[in-house]
Amino acid sequence: MTVENRALIDEAEEKADALAVSPQQDGRRRVIIEGVSPEVDAGRFPAKRTVGDSVRVEADIFTDGHDQIAAILLFRQETSAKWMEVPMKPIVNDRWYGEFSVTELGRYRYTIHAWVDHWETWRRDLLKRIDANNDTPIDYVIGAQHIEAAAERAQDPDAGWLRQQAKFLRSDTATAERRERATDLALNDVMRRYPDRRFATEFEREVAIVVDPVRARFSSWYELFPRSTSREPGRHGTFADCEARLPYIAQLGFDVVYLPPVHPIGIRFRKGKNNSVTAEPGDFGSPWAIGAPEGGHKAIHPLLGTAEDFRRLVKRASELGMQIALDIAFQASPDHPYVKDHEEWFRKRPDGTIQYAENPPKKYQDIYPFEFETPKWLELWQELKSVFVYWIEQGVRIFRVDNPHTKAFPFWEWCIGELKREWPDVLFLSEAFTRPKIMYRLAKLGFSQSYTYFPWRNGKHELIAYLNELTKTPVREFFRPNQWPNTPDILTEFLQLGTRAAFLIRFLLAATLGANYGIYGPAFELLESRPVRPGSEEYLDSEKYQIRFWDLDRPNSLREIISLVNRIRHENPALQYDWQLDFHPVDNDQLICYSKRSPDGSNLILVVVNLDPHHRQSGFVDLPLRDLQIEEDRPYQANDLLTGARYVWSGPRNYVELDPSSIPGHIFRIRRRLRIETDFEYFL
Amino acid sequence: MTVENRALIDEAEEKADALAVSPQQDGRRRVIIEGVSPEVDAGRFPAKRTVGDSVRVEADIFTDGHDQIAAILLFRQETSAKWMEVPMKPIVNDRWYGEFSVTELGRYRYTIHAWVDHWETWRRDLLKRIDANNDTPIDYVIGAQHIEAAAERAQDPDAGWLRQQAKFLRSDTATAERRERATDLALNDVMRRYPDRRFATEFEREVAIVVDPVRARFSSWYELFPRSTSREPGRHGTFADCEARLPYIAQLGFDVVYLPPVHPIGIRFRKGKNNSVTAEPGDFGSPWAIGAPEGGHKAIHPLLGTAEDFRRLVKRASELGMQIALDIAFQASPDHPYVKDHEEWFRKRPDGTIQYAENPPKKYQDIYPFEFETPKWLELWQELKSVFVYWIEQGVRIFRVDNPHTKAFPFWEWCIGELKREWPDVLFLSEAFTRPKIMYRLAKLGFSQSYTYFPWRNGKHELIAYLNELTKTPVREFFRPNQWPNTPDILTEFLQLGTRAAFLIRFLLAATLGANYGIYGPAFELLESRPVRPGSEEYLDSEKYQIRFWDLDRPNSLREIISLVNRIRHENPALQYDWQLDFHPVDNDQLICYSKRSPDGSNLILVVVNLDPHHRQSGFVDLPLRDLQIEEDRPYQANDLLTGARYVWSGPRNYVELDPSSIPGHIFRIRRRLRIETDFEYFL
Repeated sequence: MTVENRALIDEAEEKADALAVSPQQDGRRRVIIEGVSPEVDAGRFPAKRTVGDSVRVEADIFTDGHDQIAAILLFRQETSAKWMEVPMKPIVNDRWYGEFSVTELGRYRYTIHAWVDHWETWRRDLLKRIDANNDTPIDYVIGAQHIEAAAERAQDPDAGWLRQQAKFLRSDTATAERRERATDLALNDVMRRYPDRRFATEFEREVAIVVDPVRARFSSWYELFPRSTSREPGRHGTFADCEARLPYIAQLGFDVVYLPPVHPIGIRFRKGKNNSVTAEPGDFGSPWAIGAPEGGHKAIHPLLGTAEDFRRLVKRASELGMQIALDIAFQASPDHPYVKDHEEWFRKRPDGTIQYAENPPKKYQDIYPFEFETPKWLELWQELKSVFVYWIEQGVRIFRVDNPHTKAFPFWEWCIGELKREWPDVLFLSEAFTRPKIMYRLAKLGFSQSYTYFPWRNGKHELIAYLNELTKTPVREFFRPNQWPNTPDILTEFLQLGTRAAFLIRFLLAATLGANYGIYGPAFELLESRPVRPGSEEYLDSEKYQIRFWDLDRPNSLREIISLVNRIRHENPALQYDWQLDFHPVDNDQLICYSKRSPDGSNLILVVVNLDPHHRQSGFVDLPLRDLQIEEDRPYQANDLLTGARYVWSGPRNYVELDPSSIPGHIFRIRRRLRIETDFEYFL
Repeated sequence: MTVENRALIDEAEEKADALAVSPQQDGRRRVIIEGVSPEVDAGRFPAKRTVGDSVRVEADIFTDGHDQIAAILLFRQETSAKWMEVPMKPIVNDRWYGEFSVTELGRYRYTIHAWVDHWETWRRDLLKRIDANNDTPIDYVIGAQHIEAAAERAQDPDAGWLRQQAKFLRSDTATAERRERATDLALNDVMRRYPDRRFATEFEREVAIVVDPVRARFSSWYELFPRSTSREPGRHGTFADCEARLPYIAQLGFDVVYLPPVHPIGIRFRKGKNNSVTAEPGDFGSPWAIGAPEGGHKAIHPLLGTAEDFRRLVKRASELGMQIALDIAFQASPDHPYVKDHEEWFRKRPDGTIQYAENPPKKYQDIYPFEFETPKWLELWQELKSVFVYWIEQGVRIFRVDNPHTKAFPFWEWCIGELKREWPDVLFLSEAFTRPKIMYRLAKLGFSQSYTYFPWRNGKHELIAYLNELTKTPVREFFRPNQWPNTPDILTEFLQLGTRAAFLIRFLLAATLGANYGIYGPAFELLESRPVRPGSEEYLDSEKYQIRFWDLDRPNSLREIISLVNRIRHENPALQYDWQLDFHPVDNDQLICYSKRSPDGSNLILVVVNLDPHHRQSGFVDLPLRDLQIEEDRPYQANDLLTGARYVWSGPRNYVELDPSSIPGHIFRIRRRLRIETDFEYFL
């Protein structure tokens, strides 16, 4: 038998024995570490954080018997070999925690080591013995042995000093003096620097954390069609027009400007207005039917402008504190250069034609999907990745990915992983409006943000249940919701009510429930609510198939309040995080009430929204004052940031009344304490 | 750089990349398998079943896009290389399930494979096309391609037959005929036998299942001190006396007879009656102070008898359908031979003495714990394991392990793993009355059954919460509760009430809530309730420190009802399983009501217990008739198996009344349907 064969067999046997203990390794490692969080699918996927976040790691850590234990949290940037260490502390019920800050983009790793702390066990027992006046000289000799062992692990001057202490404990001195020396806190401090970690248990995984830019956690998106930005009705908009629109968007307070595909549009089977099967002359087609003789996913539609125009748009947005997000839709029109040059990336039908998209009996002959089972799949993957790389090189850092769930999952895990290794500041929004496990899997495998079911959650109880699922369960470790009241594909039945109140309700909810949210404008702020036909969620005269001209100055525009709410979001850290969201009871099911807090708790926002766009609603909200750190027997102030109104409240139950004909919500900043006489200088 | 170095570096890099996809492996494996159950800590530990059980495996399985998928469950005995396969079926929301039976003791493994099913996708789409009268000849050619590919994977006669079908679909025939042939169920059946599994995703783990004897799931324990079985007061009982007691225990209906340690007892620091620090002459000491000059853990106390006597006891028990369980307490008295022969297995103090057990300032000088951090730990492990082996060779198959949580966890995982590999029928009961995570860890790492907090759960709501945790959460996959109302260490405050009703309440709960339960007798059936002092849970004149003589024929003995309940347990499979336990509302918090069902649902037991030992209590129970498969508009019968009384009930709400002065509980067998005229022959 060759050495290689032997090794293979050994490996196979080891694998078969995977669940058995290997006594050679583990015999004296008595501490157990389990139930570690954050972990996604037992470490299969990284958990997500943003730059500056604190990562709180928890674990169940315990040992047999009654010995004291010690535990440390180890962390490092993945590119560094050097572990940093912080001590962990017990909480309750064998649960421990430790924290570290992630200050750099990219991946971190953490793990946990824990060991039986014989010194601490000895010290605890000695204190009990002293308490019972039951300590004997031999107890101090045992302590001296621990100290001498630590001295071996220490360098001078600590080593020498420790040896002195040990010598003293071994010497024949008065009980009082010996007790004092043995329980000296300074001695304990030095001893804790040199623990005996020979038999430390090392948690079996090095758990990965992906650290994204802050914008992954807190962003305000505005989607618009560049071709509809012309200031003359009927003229195809350009990047220059789009650039001219940027100050308007900046003034609304958004920071991500998301453009549907900007590429050449296919001619064959082009869709006409309102999704008609045949285009009329002059119809521009759908931007998602990507590819024409002028080029494909790396080209720009000639009517929009040039690559240089595009780069200027990116730069101008940046000057205004905004980022351009591009749509990546991996599909091809029949006129895409890929179809000619890379037939092998598509599925061929027996007659030699290429398989178009279909959902039998419906046919979408303007779209060819890629075939992820092609023998040339690796080349296909590489080409698709190169599309991202191209736009990254043009200055784009945010991508909204169209229907990622219709492309192979392994592709995304590979592609996003590769891209983020090189450009850790790049973000990906997953547009997968599909079944929940699929949406979650895409988030696990790398998407930075995800669209949600928010558009269709209108009732109080369904909103609470859904938001709690997103923010209070392990889902939050990998799935960052981005809440949209509308998109070009989604004009909900609620918005079809058409009233200003309906739009405001959905806007206030999105912007305060989601640290990440977005609207598709100007349709949203201009209250566009006409469906293409009853029962449809498609817009009439949808911009997906035609140019629209929008009169931004219409008096009923929501621009003022959108601008105000975005300012409130920027001024209040509570609205920039999703995890500290708590719903509070209201005795009226048409009113929803929730608070959000900044991580340090100092900024406290309370939101009440009237979910009924038709009627004035009132009720009593019930606040958990203690949880909110409000003194129970003192008044506090609720300042409505939307109207400027101020209310002095006291106690947990307080009256609210909201009239949809004005503003159907409150966004209160809570001042936890009103000043009283002793707060003023003249009192002193 | 040498080849070896290169390999090492490659391996290290691969490890660092562990979370990235390896495109060479995974590129076209489009199906995702996750959320697999049963799994304990992501496969770190095996799940537990007993012989004859059905293992229901569930997983979230899905793929990108709209293709149909297929999944199979693969399973094998761990010692076999050959996988068996069963198809999995979708439930809802991307959840799939499959089942297999475990018919042999030992370990099984299972895993899951799943793939995109192009044939089924084609078939589904064709049916839709036909429905819309939209099918074209080319659709059939595509089908023919699938069939031809399957023919390549098939053998004759299927292969030939499939080629015929393909040829037909390619031929120029009438639409109706082609449709019929393509959608033929026989064709589909044959095609399903030859799926295209080239790109099947294989779940990343082979999950282990430990299969124990049925007794691991369903057992009735009776603990007694052999030395108290003498028929003459004051004489030390022997194994022969114990043998004479067996028919009594068998008649009570128990099947496990558990004996505290039967080894020689230490002399130095021996405890006297009622745990006094110094023994009087003639005191026999605690059986847990194991070891004397006559021997240690493999020896028998000379006053009990010989190894041959012991083997006869085991044999006699077996003839009565019972098994002897031994207590394994890994600790030594100062007189244990280990202390002389293996000083290195104990901790030495600086003065050369051996460290006794202590909980400062309390000292337990009669007990030396083993030192699991000894450099000779491996020898220690082997010796401790050999203790089990010795008793296994004497015919013992069940061990109650004393305080396993004061010995190193890795030792138990290794020891139980090794023993069960050779003797898969051996069972281990963990006596760890300690913090919950420690109890659960011991169960995960191999203990077959565990004592619980049941002794201290007296209120209705705490009973419901605890039992739901044990039977409705993932805990049930590894932790098998064994419910005891008393033990020699636990005389609860509830039992100290001292009334017959108090004992009956706790007995009925233990025996019906726990498929595994036990009592410490004869103290239990003889209502022994005097604590050593107020506030203590120790018995007065505890058998732990002295011989007791019990008058089994006392008229107030619970023997009749114990015997009856054990018979009911044997006759009703519902009481032999823990998982199908459901609590039902009663409008009186002193009454607790629950049902248990056999796995096939046919046997339905309903229990109502009056938790108040002082007063008659009554109320209405509210039964979920539909869940219990009782017709809602028909009467049904509740037969009280304790009293023989029969009640005809109808509808969900029914009155119950329980008087603690008679029997404080009902154990109803529910007959779901009363016979009516059409059930009788004369009606026909």
